[in-house]
Amino acid sequence: MDIFERLKQNPGPLGQFADYGEGYYVFPQLKGEIGPVMEFQGKKVITWSINNYLGLANHPEVRKADADAAAEYGMAYPMGARAMSGQTDYHAQLEQELADFVQKESSYLLNFGYQGMVSTIDALVSKHDVIVYDAECHACIVDGVRLHFGKRFIYQHNDIESFDKTIKRARKLADKTGGGILVITEGVFGMTGKQGILKEIVAYKDEYKFRLLVDDAHGFGTLGKTGAGAGEEQECQDAIDIYFSTFAKSMAGFGAFIAGDKDIIRILKYNLRSQIFAKSLTMPMVIGGLKRLELLRNHPELKDKLWSNVEKIQKGLQERGFDIGGSNTCVAPIVLQGSTIEATILAKEMREEYGIFVSVVIYPVIPKGMIIFRIIPTAAHEDEHIEYTLNSFAEIKEKLEDGYYKRKAEEMNVDFIQY
Amino acid sequence: MDIFERLKQNPGPLGQFADYGEGYYVFPQLKGEIGPVMEFQGKKVITWSINNYLGLANHPEVRKADADAAAEYGMAYPMGARAMSGQTDYHAQLEQELADFVQKESSYLLNFGYQGMVSTIDALVSKHDVIVYDAECHACIVDGVRLHFGKRFIYQHNDIESFDKTIKRARKLADKTGGGILVITEGVFGMTGKQGILKEIVAYKDEYKFRLLVDDAHGFGTLGKTGAGAGEEQECQDAIDIYFSTFAKSMAGFGAFIAGDKDIIRILKYNLRSQIFAKSLTMPMVIGGLKRLELLRNHPELKDKLWSNVEKIQKGLQERGFDIGGSNTCVAPIVLQGSTIEATILAKEMREEYGIFVSVVIYPVIPKGMIIFRIIPTAAHEDEHIEYTLNSFAEIKEKLEDGYYKRKAEEMNVDFIQY
Repeated sequence: MDIFERLKQNPGPLGQFADYGEGYYVFPQLKGEIGPVMEFQGKKVITWSINNYLGLANHPEVRKADADAAAEYGMAYPMGARAMSGQTDYHAQLEQELADFVQKESSYLLNFGYQGMVSTIDALVSKHDVIVYDAECHACIVDGVRLHFGKRFIYQHNDIESFDKTIKRARKLADKTGGGILVITEGVFGMTGKQGILKEIVAYKDEYKFRLLVDDAHGFGTLGKTGAGAGEEQECQDAIDIYFSTFAKSMAGFGAFIAGDKDIIRILKYNLRSQIFAKSLTMPMVIGGLKRLELLRNHPELKDKLWSNVEKIQKGLQERGFDIGGSNTCVAPIVLQGSTIEATILAKEMREEYGIFVSVVIYPVIPKGMIIFRIIPTAAHEDEHIEYTLNSFAEIKEKLEDGYYKRKAEEMNVDFIQY
Repeated sequence: MDIFERLKQNPGPLGQFADYGEGYYVFPQLKGEIGPVMEFQGKKVITWSINNYLGLANHPEVRKADADAAAEYGMAYPMGARAMSGQTDYHAQLEQELADFVQKESSYLLNFGYQGMVSTIDALVSKHDVIVYDAECHACIVDGVRLHFGKRFIYQHNDIESFDKTIKRARKLADKTGGGILVITEGVFGMTGKQGILKEIVAYKDEYKFRLLVDDAHGFGTLGKTGAGAGEEQECQDAIDIYFSTFAKSMAGFGAFIAGDKDIIRILKYNLRSQIFAKSLTMPMVIGGLKRLELLRNHPELKDKLWSNVEKIQKGLQERGFDIGGSNTCVAPIVLQGSTIEATILAKEMREEYGIFVSVVIYPVIPKGMIIFRIIPTAAHEDEHIEYTLNSFAEIKEKLEDGYYKRKAEEMNVDFIQY
């Protein structure tokens, strides 16, 4: 069958919502400055869906650094791949500062996190190596693993018993192939708000001899005494061989970096295909990145404010009987079971009647069947936003338990393909 | 063997040059404004290594648009993936204007070209489909194809006889599996300066029923009457089902787009993993992109100037007996055979004695054994730069034919791993 014909017949798990939800549930448009209150369809909404953890997106010093750098360099600078013509002193400076911040010898900037992770995995393994990774790893890790020519094993999400079995299998296989083992997990699973079980995994390193790659996108800047992430929080940062974080969360930007021992980072920078064959990270983001990192280092009160908000929200939700799925991070997921239609009705009511904008996460971002309303607090949220949101959720919860949304869902006549 | 141990023993085709060439041949640093004359290690050099084809990187209107947009929005805006919270009117506007420009119904912005292409291929094919692609396709296409669960066939670079055999095999296989066929090639092969044989390939569409995806990174803005690229140049734009271009060349920026029929683009935007699961293209690049596209549309004199320079250089090189490898694009590759060491000596002399900065391209960017000095003219180069460069190359050529560089190479005692 023609490729396009097939796609039209089955537009995919998200694509099926195109007619029903585009512009509302998917591809919604938030207007105004990034912050706790934005505009959605002409109305002010309290926004809990943007990973601007430390509130840096609109920090005046960040905005000034971004603006000044763009005025001085434009968005084109430097042109070309890093290895060809995209090298600058600022790139090197940010790399050194990032390395110091996450307590590693060296780091390397990535022009974009997704492809950077894909290429990092690709560059680390050869066909004789075995990859072991958590079942709920982010799509970029999954795509990186998909490039692997050798064997890969998945262990159940954050399940040390499953990891135990899996690492034993991997060791046995690697002994046979003569390859090594790469374990990949996340510092924070952004969708469920759980820290990866780094400490438990690290305890296996001596006996099972593997290298550990950790995607700490949501941990960087939010966890650990200094903000160095989940490894610092769990006191095992040293045992992370390759530390990865994007700038898309706490750093309020784009691009990413990997950090580790200098010999290995140096080899990787010659072997990351998406970096060798694509443009260097743009200068305004590098200079803007330096400013963000400076604020992150020198203003612990941003992280303190974030955590004060996190605690109010998580405690408030739990007091009101919500399941926040055992979050031990900033993210407060409200985990619900139920049909996708119920979820959309609930989300709509939150927006329309309560003026609260929360992202609804469904498959394929999270496992099938689960629905998560993901509340992402930031340092920029104030008590009034928190109070109001908690009270609104409490009202909604009553209606939910009353079967109100279920009845509404039944009244509707929307049919989705079952994935 | 431990993964890191293996990498240290074999740092890869480029990695072996780290000690010998870092900061000079690889990761060199060009300073100053992007333009025909920049600074390398404290000296002015005429620069022929930056894909700033139309000279837009430093066009005052572009610089102003970039600066204004960064001042208004910062680099963080919009935060989140396009489908979650990264949608803006400007994104939609640029998409419509790009679609119009490349004569397609619809387009979709990509947060980065490399991962955008990888995910486009990934989203287009299912395991029963067959991919047919050119042997010299860019790394991002290769990585996209590597994700494919089904069969893939490579045809020899730009070789229609090889394509003929390959598409017949593919058709036979697809008839068996019930899948479709995706053919992938480039509008311009940036390393060799040859246009892809689109017209010849398109002639097979009726009989062999395939979909055609074209990466026109170097063709966009430089080829075709209106600058719509290689398809327009070869009068077969309609037959390109998915048109792809990066903003890293003529558009002097980063990010990319795909364009095609609106039904298909709409389905793709719900299925591109690197777009669904990663941040939206930053606002300053979107607004800056609108300005670049406006200039590209309304100032054909930029393209005319580029081509006038191209012709002077290519003619001048040919008159002086250089092999420019049959380039029918802006790129003027100087194709040489010889050892990598010879290439590095030659490149060094160009920089040190002549003050000319040309990138040296070696494996793995191009096939093993080949050495290409790639001259990339731009609309910003002036006659004096061209004259001087041609005369310098003529001098170098004499020495080359005299065996001067070969002798120098033999004197040196540098040993590279043979790949």
